[in-house]
Amino acid sequence: MAHTVAELGEFGLIDAMVAGQPPTKGIEVGPGDDAAVLALGGGRTVATTDLLVETHHFRRDWSSAEDVGHKASAQNLADLVAMAARPVAVLVGLGLPADLPVDWVQELYRGLRAECDPLGVGVAGGDVVAAEQVTVAVTALGELLGDAPLRRGGARAGDVVAVYGRLGWAEAGLAVLRRGFRSPRVLVDAHRRPAVPYDAGDSALEHGATAMCDVSDGLLADAGHIATASGVAIDVHTDQLYVPDPMSEIASALGVDPVRWVLHGGEDHAMVATFPTPPAHPWRVVGTVASGSGVTVDGEAYEHTSGHTHFG
Amino acid sequence: MAHTVAELGEFGLIDAMVAGQPPTKGIEVGPGDDAAVLALGGGRTVATTDLLVETHHFRRDWSSAEDVGHKASAQNLADLVAMAARPVAVLVGLGLPADLPVDWVQELYRGLRAECDPLGVGVAGGDVVAAEQVTVAVTALGELLGDAPLRRGGARAGDVVAVYGRLGWAEAGLAVLRRGFRSPRVLVDAHRRPAVPYDAGDSALEHGATAMCDVSDGLLADAGHIATASGVAIDVHTDQLYVPDPMSEIASALGVDPVRWVLHGGEDHAMVATFPTPPAHPWRVVGTVASGSGVTVDGEAYEHTSGHTHFG
Repeated sequence: MAHTVAELGEFGLIDAMVAGQPPTKGIEVGPGDDAAVLALGGGRTVATTDLLVETHHFRRDWSSAEDVGHKASAQNLADLVAMAARPVAVLVGLGLPADLPVDWVQELYRGLRAECDPLGVGVAGGDVVAAEQVTVAVTALGELLGDAPLRRGGARAGDVVAVYGRLGWAEAGLAVLRRGFRSPRVLVDAHRRPAVPYDAGDSALEHGATAMCDVSDGLLADAGHIATASGVAIDVHTDQLYVPDPMSEIASALGVDPVRWVLHGGEDHAMVATFPTPPAHPWRVVGTVASGSGVTVDGEAYEHTSGHTHFG
Repeated sequence: MAHTVAELGEFGLIDAMVAGQPPTKGIEVGPGDDAAVLALGGGRTVATTDLLVETHHFRRDWSSAEDVGHKASAQNLADLVAMAARPVAVLVGLGLPADLPVDWVQELYRGLRAECDPLGVGVAGGDVVAAEQVTVAVTALGELLGDAPLRRGGARAGDVVAVYGRLGWAEAGLAVLRRGFRSPRVLVDAHRRPAVPYDAGDSALEHGATAMCDVSDGLLADAGHIATASGVAIDVHTDQLYVPDPMSEIASALGVDPVRWVLHGGEDHAMVATFPTPPAHPWRVVGTVASGSGVTVDGEAYEHTSGHTHFG
């Protein structure tokens, strides 16, 4: 039996929050997908919230305030994209140490806004309070692109699994920073600011996607979320994964297998989706769906522990 | 010039977040009111977010986890009520120390749910991450009761100012706890769990309210928000304020003026509103609106600093 939150873990804690909750009028999609879908005021709203906490999700010596602003927006907007929704607005809750320089906060805002502005997303509200650690709690709100959300539970045996966006880049960048290096710059920058494929919702709908999920916990973990929700088995094919040259080179220098970064790295916020027929570029087919359960790699169980854990 | 966040303060920090932001499609009411109003998916959504941080907003030795859950829900739901909106769902972001007992979290959930369930409000989603301080970031989402939100800017000269709910109880309870006492229990409990007047939105609309605001920063501060947004002057009449007996008694024992608690205490989440004609019970008329600007008490400037400051 779990006695501390570290023992129960993130997903156990979220399950416990809503255990036994009766279906609520207005909540069409509740916890357990990338975002909630709510019937509100005669329409439908898609909503998600995420926290970034200093030392746990970023370090002020590794990431600029602007980087943190980009990342806080991006990870929430990505959750809306994963439901095939259009982001409209964000609410920003900030916990800030009293002695934090105002310049740092102004830069954070610049990053937040720079991620949101090109999408036409505005800051609709916020709260700023004192805290010992910099804490950024962003809620993103949007509307569905199509008639229905693209959920995790629609994958069918015979579908292909495809990815749009980067896998493992942020994880490789973090590994580089942890060893005390600052390059390859392209990977370090990927850790600092994810490059979310913001048109993935439209593109997934166009290609007839059956399920989609934001890769925030790692490809295997998030493909696992689709497999579980859909009641299917997913096999990932390592020969179809893309390992960019800088990643191969630094992996070799650090003596690690870059495919591990690609399979387990979260925080790039790529999209993983399933399709009845192979989708065109920019999607990259990386696996197949079959009847059964669980996720395998090249047809075999994968021995390493899977994905990011918040209380590790 | 402000160099730290403590020097700039909460409102300066929120203003800076949205300074120069162009009007955004979909945001009907942005920052500066109790909640945002968004045009989403063919309807309208009312949304607000607030953070509670350990040691700054609660102490684990003064409040139970259940109290913290009640308070985190209540303060957000109150912001929706203040717009004349019906709360529908909450999203809950939690930052938790890894060694926090799971029992504490379960109790927090019990408090959150106990505040929401009677209103038919459900938990639609959440995020749980590691943090050094317990941090509770609740976002509340709802829909308008009427055709338009009840904003801060509609008060007119000749209106009366009225309050629905408690004023100063939570502040008095906190003063008691700070002196090392645990009673009067009714005041200490008011600090731990606000008693939000959840039907105030309907009631304000029925009585033809012209403006409304949640009292979270103190009556004078929040009446000031209405005065500023409406371009009017507000005078508060101390002979119309209600000072309950336990508050008079403990104020006398502590050698303080209880009217200060009533004028400055936030966190009870009463509603302050303006009406063309005096509203019936449970509203209590406490002042008048005239042309001009600012807030006075019994016709005179009030010397004490006003309201709660997060970075004090």
